[in-house]
Amino acid sequence: MTVEPVAHRRRERRAGGGIPQLPFRRLTNPFTPLEVLSADHVEEIHRTSLRILAEVGVEVLGDRAIDRLARAGADVDRGSRRVRLEPGLVEELIATAPAAFTLHARNPARDVVLGGRDIVFSSVGGPAFVTDLDRGRRAGNWQDFRDYVRLISALNVIHQEAGGPLEPTDLPVETRHLDMYAFLATTLDKTWHCLGFGSTVVEDALEIAAIARSVPREALTAEPSLITIINTNSPLRLDGPMSDGLIAMAEAGQAVVATPFTLAGAMTPVTLAAAVAQQNAEALFCVVLTQMVRPGAPVVYGAFTSNVDMRTGSPAFGTPEYVKGALASGQMARRYRLPWRSSNATASVVVDAQAAYESEMAVWGAVMGGVNLLYQGAGWLEGGLTASYEKLIVDTEILQMMSEVLQPVAVDEASLGLDAIAEVGPGGHFFGAAHTLERYETAFYRPMLSDWRNYETWADDGARTATERANGIWKQLLAEFEPPPIDEARVEAIDAFVARRRGELTEPSRRKP
Amino acid sequence: MTVEPVAHRRRERRAGGGIPQLPFRRLTNPFTPLEVLSADHVEEIHRTSLRILAEVGVEVLGDRAIDRLARAGADVDRGSRRVRLEPGLVEELIATAPAAFTLHARNPARDVVLGGRDIVFSSVGGPAFVTDLDRGRRAGNWQDFRDYVRLISALNVIHQEAGGPLEPTDLPVETRHLDMYAFLATTLDKTWHCLGFGSTVVEDALEIAAIARSVPREALTAEPSLITIINTNSPLRLDGPMSDGLIAMAEAGQAVVATPFTLAGAMTPVTLAAAVAQQNAEALFCVVLTQMVRPGAPVVYGAFTSNVDMRTGSPAFGTPEYVKGALASGQMARRYRLPWRSSNATASVVVDAQAAYESEMAVWGAVMGGVNLLYQGAGWLEGGLTASYEKLIVDTEILQMMSEVLQPVAVDEASLGLDAIAEVGPGGHFFGAAHTLERYETAFYRPMLSDWRNYETWADDGARTATERANGIWKQLLAEFEPPPIDEARVEAIDAFVARRRGELTEPSRRKP
Repeated sequence: MTVEPVAHRRRERRAGGGIPQLPFRRLTNPFTPLEVLSADHVEEIHRTSLRILAEVGVEVLGDRAIDRLARAGADVDRGSRRVRLEPGLVEELIATAPAAFTLHARNPARDVVLGGRDIVFSSVGGPAFVTDLDRGRRAGNWQDFRDYVRLISALNVIHQEAGGPLEPTDLPVETRHLDMYAFLATTLDKTWHCLGFGSTVVEDALEIAAIARSVPREALTAEPSLITIINTNSPLRLDGPMSDGLIAMAEAGQAVVATPFTLAGAMTPVTLAAAVAQQNAEALFCVVLTQMVRPGAPVVYGAFTSNVDMRTGSPAFGTPEYVKGALASGQMARRYRLPWRSSNATASVVVDAQAAYESEMAVWGAVMGGVNLLYQGAGWLEGGLTASYEKLIVDTEILQMMSEVLQPVAVDEASLGLDAIAEVGPGGHFFGAAHTLERYETAFYRPMLSDWRNYETWADDGARTATERANGIWKQLLAEFEPPPIDEARVEAIDAFVARRRGELTEPSRRKP
Repeated sequence: MTVEPVAHRRRERRAGGGIPQLPFRRLTNPFTPLEVLSADHVEEIHRTSLRILAEVGVEVLGDRAIDRLARAGADVDRGSRRVRLEPGLVEELIATAPAAFTLHARNPARDVVLGGRDIVFSSVGGPAFVTDLDRGRRAGNWQDFRDYVRLISALNVIHQEAGGPLEPTDLPVETRHLDMYAFLATTLDKTWHCLGFGSTVVEDALEIAAIARSVPREALTAEPSLITIINTNSPLRLDGPMSDGLIAMAEAGQAVVATPFTLAGAMTPVTLAAAVAQQNAEALFCVVLTQMVRPGAPVVYGAFTSNVDMRTGSPAFGTPEYVKGALASGQMARRYRLPWRSSNATASVVVDAQAAYESEMAVWGAVMGGVNLLYQGAGWLEGGLTASYEKLIVDTEILQMMSEVLQPVAVDEASLGLDAIAEVGPGGHFFGAAHTLERYETAFYRPMLSDWRNYETWADDGARTATERANGIWKQLLAEFEPPPIDEARVEAIDAFVARRRGELTEPSRRKP
């Protein structure tokens, strides 16, 4: 009886047969967050944000949101739809948002905590295109949606799905969300994001999530299961579907990630301080609206400040400005005691060295800044336009490595190994030492993708780049995929719900002429 | 008269005609170093290292080193060549090493400070092979040596050359160092590393460095110009040429980077704590020897702890263990108030996503750990066996981005841009705002390599990966290269010295039979 076999399984659990990977596990950040802003700078940005909200205001296109804001004391000009918030109202409302909350998965072992020192990695969400080395770049479609979700299910380092890794554009728009949700709910035992444009897609997600967890829908209020991204249309505009979605989520006690998409030089001033101040104003506006709807509703401070190429207008990601914007955003989120979302992003259109170095910049910036939700954690390519199968595997390796960096270093008499050093002595080697043999199987991170063989061995075996090897890995994962178990009754109930709602949503009276 | 043209030049200085790059500049680290060891753990590792030095000892193969150590009070067994050091002697001697020192370049504007919060990026040093996309992998040779050094000269983000970016194996071994030094001294106005195996290669470097700077050789003692890497043969062995080189450098007051190459599982026990403890013992041993030779001699705490793949024995770099080993090493170096060296390393044999993500892991780990000398900063491939032209450009981009992350964020009334935000208002854009027009040229980092264009534009322009684009960049840099100016008299004096020494080193009496 030893602990070795257990430890061995812990490190080497494989998805299907052959691909080694780390287990699904809760991650906490042991490091003090990096700061690029002084305490005074944080307060200056805070005060500027409050002035933006009080003096400039936000244009709100949704009537329900306008009504809610007016009722709660905002200064609403219904003609221009401009909404201004007094600083006192903002401060009062953001104070009711929770500093941390748990999001409940179908499998309780896959629940995640958002806030504090917890780190949650999500997959890519929302691209219109999908690509792989064999089939090239193509419009998102239902077959790829399902295959990609199967991979997200199989990859343990991904804690959470992100609202559809790609858009199944070959499904009818009005019922697409039903097919997506049913597949997510039955193929994943992890948490997943619902869509946030309007209340219908939120209501249907709530029903399916409740069935999948086999709890009454009302139970979800106390045990949130769903999360969605609410983007502002920067600068300073909140559109109708997004504000309706935000309200529906907050009413049901589900989590909203309030995320301005603020590209400095285009949607904000060109200076980083202004970009963060404007982002902060827009994020706080959404946070305030969630708390008007339901005090205590779970909400995440979303940040997506980057910059554009001022010569071409192209958005850039994983840049130095992106990293500093992320670190500053983390500081602002902590000032408000809110969970903080950042992203793994790249502007590269191909899974190459640029894709990897921009993603590493983004991931390190996020983790060093104390990120809670790393959205777009795996698979994003081309500024978010494309979900890449090979990038999914590259990012999985990046996230696995980062998750191991966060593990503590053991320092005690056994690990200091003085006896082994004395036993081997000058000029020897440690391959056969008892100290080594007792530990070697679990001593080091075992990569999924990295190839450490020498040049000759690598060349003789096909001279494949990491991206080419990633192509083989996702295919093997897919071939060996087995979905996590689910009660057949729940699947049938979800199918019945989807069939009923499909009928309702496609009945002639609802169709556009 | 505005400040814009100056700022424009600062950001956009080009090497030759068309490649934009950052200026050569001093870098300081604004961040508090990350820690993976508690203060108690640091002391436990320290104490273990002292016990290794006192109880196990180091095998020293050089007679001069043995004599020095015996004279200074070490416990020397001349039969086994085992040298043991009492803790008191170690503590006393490491205290005389400087916490920081300046290394003097031919151009004083290229001087570098090693220590404190300064960061110095060096190029790759020492590979036996060289590779590029056109010609493939081949043995290092004189033509490639010169071209590669020209690129190191042209790339501003590289502060320091690293002792020959590749071995010119087509030059005669006994005089190769003379050709290398003469070319480095005349093609670079930056600092460069000399070789460290034996005293001859050190003495010749001192003469050439003095001529290049036009100072008497004796002046170099107070103004060190040279630096070299001294590796131990782990575990716990210091070979003859390395110990002779260390002594020659310290005698002349030149800088030594005491670097054990400790791959956990092979040259040290498999545990990270033991690897760092053994590395620490070996590094301190070399530091002690420098201070025995000349109290106050400049010395850098070198760290190169990584791990091997326990299934194959292949070395791995840029791994989670590598990052944690680097962070721990930085903590140990700071405990002794010594400058700390880490590296930009990858095991990949091809310039692909793996090469980029492993290098980013290594660079972030080093910078977050408070590195002073990032050795092998640009160009290293294949675990250091190969210098890659394309990797040099990828790493240059990585180092440029990191150097921009270290720059402060301006937060003041102008940068907070409230007036611009009010002027543009909800739903507008900032491209034409006066606030933008005043700042856009210098607002953001301009990449050398990254391509931010959209998919269609990228595809129409040849669909080239970052590595393929890097191929075009180094060729353009090389085609446009102009060496920094140097007095013709100095070049002639160096040539005359090399001619004389070449004659001495190749006279028949010195040739091997």
